[in-house]
Amino acid sequence: MKEALKREALALHEQYKGKLSVEASIPVKGIEELSLVYSPGVAAPCLEIQQNVTKAYTYTMKGNLVGVVSDGTAVLGLGDIGPEAAMPVMEGKALLLKQFAGINAVPICLDTKDTDEIVQIVRALAPTFGAINLEDISAPRCFEIEARLQDLGIPVFHDDQHGTAIVVGAGLINALKIVGKQKEQVRVVINGAGAAGVAILKILLSLGYQGSNIVVCDSKGIIYEGRKEGMNSEKEYVALWSNTANLTGSLEEAVVNTDIFIGVSAPNVLTEKMISTMNVDPIIFALANPDPEVTYENALAWGAKVIATGRSDYPNQINNMLAFPGIFRGALDVHATAITEEMKLATIEAIANLVTSDQLVEGTVVPNVFEIDVTEAVAHAVRHCAYETGIAKTKIPVFTK
Amino acid sequence: MKEALKREALALHEQYKGKLSVEASIPVKGIEELSLVYSPGVAAPCLEIQQNVTKAYTYTMKGNLVGVVSDGTAVLGLGDIGPEAAMPVMEGKALLLKQFAGINAVPICLDTKDTDEIVQIVRALAPTFGAINLEDISAPRCFEIEARLQDLGIPVFHDDQHGTAIVVGAGLINALKIVGKQKEQVRVVINGAGAAGVAILKILLSLGYQGSNIVVCDSKGIIYEGRKEGMNSEKEYVALWSNTANLTGSLEEAVVNTDIFIGVSAPNVLTEKMISTMNVDPIIFALANPDPEVTYENALAWGAKVIATGRSDYPNQINNMLAFPGIFRGALDVHATAITEEMKLATIEAIANLVTSDQLVEGTVVPNVFEIDVTEAVAHAVRHCAYETGIAKTKIPVFTK
Repeated sequence: MKEALKREALALHEQYKGKLSVEASIPVKGIEELSLVYSPGVAAPCLEIQQNVTKAYTYTMKGNLVGVVSDGTAVLGLGDIGPEAAMPVMEGKALLLKQFAGINAVPICLDTKDTDEIVQIVRALAPTFGAINLEDISAPRCFEIEARLQDLGIPVFHDDQHGTAIVVGAGLINALKIVGKQKEQVRVVINGAGAAGVAILKILLSLGYQGSNIVVCDSKGIIYEGRKEGMNSEKEYVALWSNTANLTGSLEEAVVNTDIFIGVSAPNVLTEKMISTMNVDPIIFALANPDPEVTYENALAWGAKVIATGRSDYPNQINNMLAFPGIFRGALDVHATAITEEMKLATIEAIANLVTSDQLVEGTVVPNVFEIDVTEAVAHAVRHCAYETGIAKTKIPVFTK
Repeated sequence: MKEALKREALALHEQYKGKLSVEASIPVKGIEELSLVYSPGVAAPCLEIQQNVTKAYTYTMKGNLVGVVSDGTAVLGLGDIGPEAAMPVMEGKALLLKQFAGINAVPICLDTKDTDEIVQIVRALAPTFGAINLEDISAPRCFEIEARLQDLGIPVFHDDQHGTAIVVGAGLINALKIVGKQKEQVRVVINGAGAAGVAILKILLSLGYQGSNIVVCDSKGIIYEGRKEGMNSEKEYVALWSNTANLTGSLEEAVVNTDIFIGVSAPNVLTEKMISTMNVDPIIFALANPDPEVTYENALAWGAKVIATGRSDYPNQINNMLAFPGIFRGALDVHATAITEEMKLATIEAIANLVTSDQLVEGTVVPNVFEIDVTEAVAHAVRHCAYETGIAKTKIPVFTK
């Protein structure tokens, strides 16, 4: 990070002592108001909710309140920095949920790394919140924690997995239009088998990409069935559902004759030589942040046709802000009990469609989050999907942005 | 509750969908601000905090953020209504913390009644918060939960216990001035051995009242050493530290020859006959809500000299809003690691002193929370005490109201 940016970020955080405030919606100036918002009047909504817990959506902030839950084990590119140090990111996430989707969100940084305990705590927190955004929890624990919480009755969504995967899915729809290839036929290599890499594989399979055409690598090379080193339950899943030819070897070997490279790994691992072995019109999504697997300039010079990165200073930023604000907005609006695969696919479609055919060029396969109201488009698609698939619990959207 | 109040309270809660909103302190309008509050700039405060966790007070909202934690087991006078139904009260408490003390507070309603689990969850939540307000957790679990969390490094304060006890302590200082009696000599009966009753006994002992002069009753009569029925660990404490003469019998027998009656129990249990057996100039704190142990009118007619209730429509409201906003404000200001007995006593002194000698009459033994800045007076006393007793972790108040 540049020294000036660092200084400015520190000064801003210190000035505001964090990035959120909790405000009273109803001012209390005297006994009359006090008797409505607190004892004795407050007993009325309490008793209504006791009779029917879904009334919590009517009389409390639950329906528009998201807990941003982290254990601080996989924060940005910084790794396991602990729950206190994770706070600025969780506050930032909560700020973005407010700014882009009108959602009240609070950071919940937990002083435990125990999977069982995190699951238990989120279960206990559920009455308070309309949805839970799991954030920056390290793989493979993040997969298990999210999976075990899907029966909670409120959406539990690990954005590091699905947010990136959804935007990648949307970007690839438009990238394939540019190169004139079909998702059922393209060969894909994913480098990185953490939260994002595994989620990208899953979403590509949901979208209709062929597992036989996808190879996933980690720092130890190609993941295949029977590999012993550095495996975990999610990588076993990867081995089972991708790479059906059971290729072995290095990333360098994996990229040969592929159409798409997706990196969620480390800086500068994709070389000129490797790109030269890819099929014609290679699509390169180099998402390591802040330094991608290959720089935009090099990728362009070395023959890539469509290039995306995680950076805001280059074309095609794969920014999960395109997805999560609208997904939570839509899910909360209809009291969805989960964020389902169908809702993720609807989000992908909605994001991809925001780039109209006359706008579609190599440098615009995803929309710019600051230029159009992506959130409302995504929320609309999510609400619609939730109604269609029966996961919505209300027929009338309760909140609008 | 009156039907009109009920309707108005429901309408207000429905209109606002709860009583709090979470707002962004820093608006994000484009990539520049985004790069400061989120990736990549946010990494700077994260790394500072990773190096030194106390920097969380500098760069995050922690230092001015209170979690209002309940399991919904003892909500107002409504009892065990569950975590969802407790939300309106916790939101109300958070609203009051903001309105009266400028504190950001969020409701945390837990779907568990298990003591161990609640302790574990609050421990895990500690990195996020500057202090924890335990609220509406039933006795005797509330005592154990609070006690076990005193080593957490941030204040954990069960307001239902101490809030009421502190204001009672303050009111009694002024009431005793009016009747010209000494705390070391007065005989006291406390009716009710839940959270508030036990806490009142404790604070009276801390204040210098004599355990030999205090008798505590519950619904089964006088609590004494060796009583078998309806005991728990806190009532064993009560038996040990009060009633050293080991009286047995009913409330009616307990009130004979006492100077002070404090009720935190049930409506209309204190009769004319009972008051007639008390010493001259009886002090009656009848705090059952909304219907006190004896009505103000009856207590007056039956010879009480000083009368306090929990109600806002009579003189001398024993309102914990006199205490908790200032206590949390003061404790947060100096990064106190706990709210100690000394800080509670300092609060009592500060509240009592807000009624000046020329104002002091029977109907004004406690100040009115809406008339003077009680919060700042209490916060000042708490900060001062925290410095003096070495529990403050900063020498410079960080926040002001």
